[in-house]
Amino acid sequence: MLQNDRLLKTLRGELVDRPPVWMMRQAGRFLPSYQRLREKYDFFTRCQTPELVAEITCLPVDELNVDAAILFSDILVVLQAMGVPIEMREGSGPVLLRPVEKPADVNRLEYPDVIHALGYVFQGIRATLQKLDGRVPLIGFAGAPWTLLCYLVEGKGSPNFEKARAFCYQHPDAAHALLDKLTNITISYLQLQIQAGVHAVQVFDSWAGLLGPEGFRQFAEPYLQRISKALSALSPVILFPKGAWFGLHALATSGAAAIGIDWQTDPAFARNAVGTQISLQGNLDPAILLTNCTTIEAQTRAMIRRFGTQRYIANLGHGILPHTPVAHARTFVETVRRFSEAELLSTKS
Amino acid sequence: MLQNDRLLKTLRGELVDRPPVWMMRQAGRFLPSYQRLREKYDFFTRCQTPELVAEITCLPVDELNVDAAILFSDILVVLQAMGVPIEMREGSGPVLLRPVEKPADVNRLEYPDVIHALGYVFQGIRATLQKLDGRVPLIGFAGAPWTLLCYLVEGKGSPNFEKARAFCYQHPDAAHALLDKLTNITISYLQLQIQAGVHAVQVFDSWAGLLGPEGFRQFAEPYLQRISKALSALSPVILFPKGAWFGLHALATSGAAAIGIDWQTDPAFARNAVGTQISLQGNLDPAILLTNCTTIEAQTRAMIRRFGTQRYIANLGHGILPHTPVAHARTFVETVRRFSEAELLSTKS
Repeated sequence: MLQNDRLLKTLRGELVDRPPVWMMRQAGRFLPSYQRLREKYDFFTRCQTPELVAEITCLPVDELNVDAAILFSDILVVLQAMGVPIEMREGSGPVLLRPVEKPADVNRLEYPDVIHALGYVFQGIRATLQKLDGRVPLIGFAGAPWTLLCYLVEGKGSPNFEKARAFCYQHPDAAHALLDKLTNITISYLQLQIQAGVHAVQVFDSWAGLLGPEGFRQFAEPYLQRISKALSALSPVILFPKGAWFGLHALATSGAAAIGIDWQTDPAFARNAVGTQISLQGNLDPAILLTNCTTIEAQTRAMIRRFGTQRYIANLGHGILPHTPVAHARTFVETVRRFSEAELLSTKS
Repeated sequence: MLQNDRLLKTLRGELVDRPPVWMMRQAGRFLPSYQRLREKYDFFTRCQTPELVAEITCLPVDELNVDAAILFSDILVVLQAMGVPIEMREGSGPVLLRPVEKPADVNRLEYPDVIHALGYVFQGIRATLQKLDGRVPLIGFAGAPWTLLCYLVEGKGSPNFEKARAFCYQHPDAAHALLDKLTNITISYLQLQIQAGVHAVQVFDSWAGLLGPEGFRQFAEPYLQRISKALSALSPVILFPKGAWFGLHALATSGAAAIGIDWQTDPAFARNAVGTQISLQGNLDPAILLTNCTTIEAQTRAMIRRFGTQRYIANLGHGILPHTPVAHARTFVETVRRFSEAELLSTKS
């Protein structure tokens, strides 16, 4: 039994006393307690050691009082399991040593034995659930196929992933074959996370917006739909198609319980696009958490008033920024926790 | 007298035989003939030497047959004129040596004597007009105040300019004071470009989308409006608020002759947002030019069919990418040049 089930109630569309709150990248980024572990263990050791996964995942629950934990891991572990060597360079991000440069490279990618190749993730989930001891739900996650393709083709992070876009337009058949493979693997991977006990799963399509409306319709949306439909009977699914404001309407019928909204999308626009039968999550500009407590409080309250307190999960519009002061993150969480339905009604009247 | 006035006709809303075509960053980026000049002269020498400006600006007219030239320069020269030392590091981009970190830093910025401090730009315009000899119109340009603020606060390029966003939210009064100053300088600067003979001006708000709808309304839109209203009686104005799909409607009443559309915004959405009394410019994904000639041709034709041939300027959705093959850029331009009104009608019926 969960002691705090606001997130799950919101994902099911049930009434809550106030919106649940958590922050994307709350684990493994900005907390000093995490930075200390970072000095002792390299990135993949942190991801692959169940005790460290549990410890890091619980840090923001202990220190910030959020309503949900999100597993500490990385979307790229799936590519590693497919036989792509990845180096995580502190400061400059991941480097994939054998990127996909031509259609033939797609065949080289292995279809992994997910249960074994990513066994450490499922062990990490079990260790985390023990440590959480029912305090809050645990969210599992994976990268969306298009976003994984971005890294596979570009070989590293990039502001615009032009090579990945060009690959899709020049080699649509190879792109679809790759996206299809990534979709099947992602479904297996998330099914196994659900079996290991996560209470909900989020699919990060961090670079969805870069495709534009036509490209999104071709290379991102169908795969998000397939993943959501395959999993939604097993667990609530949260889709986060960052930047793809033009695709929100189409995703409303994906079976997802919630859709994450970046800070560049107006709450009213998003609600209008997806209708009333789905929850929204987001969308404070993460840069607001770099300002000061007065500004954070005012902006957070304004955000909740615009989304409303039901069918809404308070969160940032993208991952928390590395240099965010802990006190600022705490102010964000506390502001949501103090926001009550009565206040919403009084500001409306 | 201009031999090719398709661009100006389109900006005035007059009938043309086919859409005019040019490419953002067509001068000073991808052409091998430019790369050779780049090896001989450093960045600011290239910007500050009228003969080099004229030579570089004319390269794409000579080599690609575009319907307009855009002056070779950089949006940051205005900041340099305001007393901010800038180093242009090849490969990693500009570095501003004394960024704006706190409100007091705003007062430190000089209000330049634009006519002298940027005299080399106006000389460059005159030299270019001579060299163009009426073949095509010349577009002048400046960075929008918000986009200049991004560089001033961040001190360099950045994928998301979080510091700039945080500065605006934390210090709105200082931000508005800075934006006001940048707006006045930009108006003077563009007025002097028009006096020197440019046929149209484009205002690049490259990072407009990063603000999100509320931030755009506060920190970008009012300044774009002011610039556009101050200049539109003197010259056609093209506004390019990249990423700010949510702000297109508001800019329709700015007096601008055209609005540039990035590749993430659907042509029909843009047309619906701005109405019929303004031209649209854009919006091919620059990554398409990395593919092959068949794909480029198909995508370019599809784009024109979606925008229509009137009140439309064919262009990319952002600057041409540095590694674009010349043959691909030429295919893009040629495809637009071959597109006729008859073809549009036949595909519609």
